[in-house]
Amino acid sequence: MDTHQPETRFEVIFDVEGRNTAKFRNDIVVHKRFRHPVSVELPTDEGAGHGGDGTAPYPLAYFAAGLTACIMTQLRAFSRRLNVPVAEFTVNTRCHWEARQVGNAPYESAPIAFTMDIDLGGDASEADKRRVIAAAEKGCFVETALKPGIVKHRLKVGDNWVEV
Amino acid sequence: MDTHQPETRFEVIFDVEGRNTAKFRNDIVVHKRFRHPVSVELPTDEGAGHGGDGTAPYPLAYFAAGLTACIMTQLRAFSRRLNVPVAEFTVNTRCHWEARQVGNAPYESAPIAFTMDIDLGGDASEADKRRVIAAAEKGCFVETALKPGIVKHRLKVGDNWVEV
Repeated sequence: MDTHQPETRFEVIFDVEGRNTAKFRNDIVVHKRFRHPVSVELPTDEGAGHGGDGTAPYPLAYFAAGLTACIMTQLRAFSRRLNVPVAEFTVNTRCHWEARQVGNAPYESAPIAFTMDIDLGGDASEADKRRVIAAAEKGCFVETALKPGIVKHRLKVGDNWVEV
Repeated sequence: MDTHQPETRFEVIFDVEGRNTAKFRNDIVVHKRFRHPVSVELPTDEGAGHGGDGTAPYPLAYFAAGLTACIMTQLRAFSRRLNVPVAEFTVNTRCHWEARQVGNAPYESAPIAFTMDIDLGGDASEADKRRVIAAAEKGCFVETALKPGIVKHRLKVGDNWVEV
């Protein structure tokens, strides 16, 4: 750490307005606050097999996409800051939960693991790729909100996947 | 708990394929597995002010929508299972983070709080509404993956908001 440079701090806020009028359709509007504010409509629904009407993505599809895309955005940003060359890359994530219930009582859910397979491609060394992933883990706003140990990262090294 | 009924268990899996070819645009496909599988494209991008091209929602917009919609879906489902009448309802969430960095080094992020204001409307008693919210907290696949204490719930009671 360069002790001559001061630490700076910034805040990130996303506000959500959610409305449900009857079944499993949720009308959702998300507002990004502060710099360059923007709003987006992101409705959700359950599929017909789960009592919904299939009019929009499942809530967990948004969650899984948000988690994956957040770490991808940090991988892109921090590869630049760390001067590690990364061209095209892929991240494949499995979000895996279990739930338990007695009779028709409300079920209780728990995450089993969220496993991310990261293929950064290119010619950067394994050590440099590990540095980028380590920085992305600490910067990812979604991952730092999750219970420790739930997210597992694997890096593609040659033809193998190694835990990182 | 009705000890005459057996406990049942089920699993939930969402798989994500993410690809990034250059800037901050992430092409994302999410596959719901098991019962009634379905796939959906959920691309993300950063806005122009953050180095992106604004072609799709921010990753954190998906995360915030997914968190809010997941608890809303459980509120709808479990109000039925608990026989608590709920018609139209709203959930407004603020997802609030901070990040710190030195110079242009990769920043480190941390959640401050995700605050959910829940207005279940209707004529159900406060006690019944609290029962539904308590069940939804335990069932919500997103909330049970988050660090304990980050999500704060408030229930509208008359003209006031009370912590629940």
